[in-house]
Amino acid sequence: MSQILLHRVLPFSKRLMSATILPGESVVDATAGNGNDTFFLAELVGEDGKVFAFDIQQAALEATAGRLGELTSRVNLILDSHADVDRYVNQPIGGAMFNLGYLPYSDDKSIITKPKSTIQAIHKLLGMLKKGGIITISVYDGHDGGKEERDALLAYVKTLHQADVHVIRYELLNQRNNPPFLVALEKVRDFEEVVRVD
Amino acid sequence: MSQILLHRVLPFSKRLMSATILPGESVVDATAGNGNDTFFLAELVGEDGKVFAFDIQQAALEATAGRLGELTSRVNLILDSHADVDRYVNQPIGGAMFNLGYLPYSDDKSIITKPKSTIQAIHKLLGMLKKGGIITISVYDGHDGGKEERDALLAYVKTLHQADVHVIRYELLNQRNNPPFLVALEKVRDFEEVVRVD
Repeated sequence: MSQILLHRVLPFSKRLMSATILPGESVVDATAGNGNDTFFLAELVGEDGKVFAFDIQQAALEATAGRLGELTSRVNLILDSHADVDRYVNQPIGGAMFNLGYLPYSDDKSIITKPKSTIQAIHKLLGMLKKGGIITISVYDGHDGGKEERDALLAYVKTLHQADVHVIRYELLNQRNNPPFLVALEKVRDFEEVVRVD
Repeated sequence: MSQILLHRVLPFSKRLMSATILPGESVVDATAGNGNDTFFLAELVGEDGKVFAFDIQQAALEATAGRLGELTSRVNLILDSHADVDRYVNQPIGGAMFNLGYLPYSDDKSIITKPKSTIQAIHKLLGMLKKGGIITISVYDGHDGGKEERDALLAYVKTLHQADVHVIRYELLNQRNNPPFLVALEKVRDFEEVVRVD
């Protein structure tokens, strides 16, 4: 079996994180969900690093804690909106991950990420991000409200200046079962507050 | 200056080629144009490799020959449509590159790649391609006829089975001057003639 180069979205987003996050850094899982990305990030940052993991559902944080096991000591579990990330994180971050949409396997699929808070969170995280750092956003647009969030996100990223941030869209075109597509942002210049180009 | 990870389309397509093409292989530049990709591929395959470079315009092949210099011995310059690639290439190939649209800097921008011949060429090249090999297609859709070719290409790749071929779309979302987007195909299973799923 030869190595696959054109990865599916979730493995590709993890490869981007692996290529940029260094041991000892602080990073953000903006949507802890069932804790898969939190666990992955906790391994990446190592025992001297810190993961700030946000979710608005207690059930998600409990699932994440269960997934983490011994790695719990590297993670701050935060029951609040990622839009308020700046209340909890006061240091530069090495990267951040989002999975938009609803909590997987949840009974209540009406609890979803929303355009306004998603964009607020991304905007704040871009300020905190190190130069060369990446924010990955896996976008699911098949659920109620998904298309509105997708369109708001795509409109937002187009306002970012190419000299500040590189924004890519990456997707598989011939996969079944409506996989997510990826939006990833790389900070290519140092700034504390990104200027939007309208 | 930290390393950029989210590359623009043309450097990203070259990185995919670099990751898969081996010295001594035969490869195809389906649109020789001004010879930039031909030169790049000739370096990649080395002195024991071969590049088959197609263009329908004599001026393009002359520009390519000029660009190649000493590397000309590694390249077959072919004044014919890439849709007839199987008349000239009878061996497995390590990869192929396309740049759709018109010849850069040409006076006659009405001479463009066309949907039918582009798709015929891709389809034949998929059969010749080694397992793990990649075809990159840089898509410009701003010119007359560009949208029709883009839409035909996107419809075609969706007919390829995900067990045979991984197809990605990769693009920068916040770049000026209408840069191309990339469609790349990776052959993940051995076959001589790909079956289309309609």
